[in-house]
Amino acid sequence: MRKIIGIGTGPGASDLLTVRAVQTIENEDVIFAPNNRGKNMALDTVRPYLQDQKIVMLDFPMGQSTDETYQKARDTIYESLAEDDTGVFLNIGDSSIYSTFLNMMNGEENHKFDIEIIPGIPSFIAAANIMQMNLVKKGETLMLLDEVAEDTELTADAFAILKTSKLESTLDILDAQGYDYGYIEYASLENELVLTDREEMLKRKNYISLLIARKKQG
Amino acid sequence: MRKIIGIGTGPGASDLLTVRAVQTIENEDVIFAPNNRGKNMALDTVRPYLQDQKIVMLDFPMGQSTDETYQKARDTIYESLAEDDTGVFLNIGDSSIYSTFLNMMNGEENHKFDIEIIPGIPSFIAAANIMQMNLVKKGETLMLLDEVAEDTELTADAFAILKTSKLESTLDILDAQGYDYGYIEYASLENELVLTDREEMLKRKNYISLLIARKKQG
Repeated sequence: MRKIIGIGTGPGASDLLTVRAVQTIENEDVIFAPNNRGKNMALDTVRPYLQDQKIVMLDFPMGQSTDETYQKARDTIYESLAEDDTGVFLNIGDSSIYSTFLNMMNGEENHKFDIEIIPGIPSFIAAANIMQMNLVKKGETLMLLDEVAEDTELTADAFAILKTSKLESTLDILDAQGYDYGYIEYASLENELVLTDREEMLKRKNYISLLIARKKQG
Repeated sequence: MRKIIGIGTGPGASDLLTVRAVQTIENEDVIFAPNNRGKNMALDTVRPYLQDQKIVMLDFPMGQSTDETYQKARDTIYESLAEDDTGVFLNIGDSSIYSTFLNMMNGEENHKFDIEIIPGIPSFIAAANIMQMNLVKKGETLMLLDEVAEDTELTADAFAILKTSKLESTLDILDAQGYDYGYIEYASLENELVLTDREEMLKRKNYISLLIARKKQG
């Protein structure tokens, strides 16, 4: 059976991959990498560990992948590997958090694969480390979500909000309900930017960004 | 100023540290490691990367650390480092999730330190990877908590429950409210155990365990 190893490539810095991820990338011959309209963030992250592996790009337009996108990618992977071959699939962040890899592999299956997954540092974890923020302490709760709908009542002590397309209404909700927050773009990369001022945040528009919020003390 | 680098050592397997964590441990001379009543999980994880570094153990009895515990640890770190020295503090999992490191460093400060943090793979992320579970998909929410209080109304699509001391009442709540779940002990270690059967889970009693739950489909 063909085998595919999903690797979480983390937030973007090449040295934030795990040792196991690096060893696996160095040992395998075929690397599948997502292409998001010409941006190849996962592949850029692992570039220092590539030598003569074969790279196969798979189209995943961010936020617009459909069942057909996943089926096409599975077909390409299947055809790119011989029986009993192993390939690596690069997934930004971690494969269990808003991921491409498990969405792709859990779809309706025309092909059978052995699956292994190697974890990566999720972007919100990298962001909390950079901001030196204790996201969640004993007895507290943390909620992850991709977007905050209007009129949401926030019931957790802390939030990681992984998309910032509704930034202004999200900040309104956080302000009204008593949360401190920080904004980060390109966590761990050269162009990393951390903002704590609301007005500065509202000037930005970048899809590699997220918000972290914590209920104000007292 | 003295500098302390907090390193997330991940779930326990030595090759699930990040490349940056390993390089930092190999380059520094003084390593501070938590001792939980004779168990030194973070130190065990980094053992393959130790040569002649000085190891200083700090007592943190799991779940019973007080302001005094943290103050004593800070005093020991301060006294173990000369002015302008750097030390490494090992934190199991990641330093932003129910962590020792930021609790310790954010306390009332008698001493000033420069602080840097290197992220680690949180245990619930390792668990989801092992179970090949897509914790949270587009439009969904994931909540982290350490314990589920009785009569809790579960409002997220998925949960990571990091302590299993109230296992039976927690499973009752998950069953009643329509969640699938998996239990894991020692994620990524040799004695790793994954259970999906409720009765099997109830026979276990292990503090290095957690639950992952997802709302049933349809």
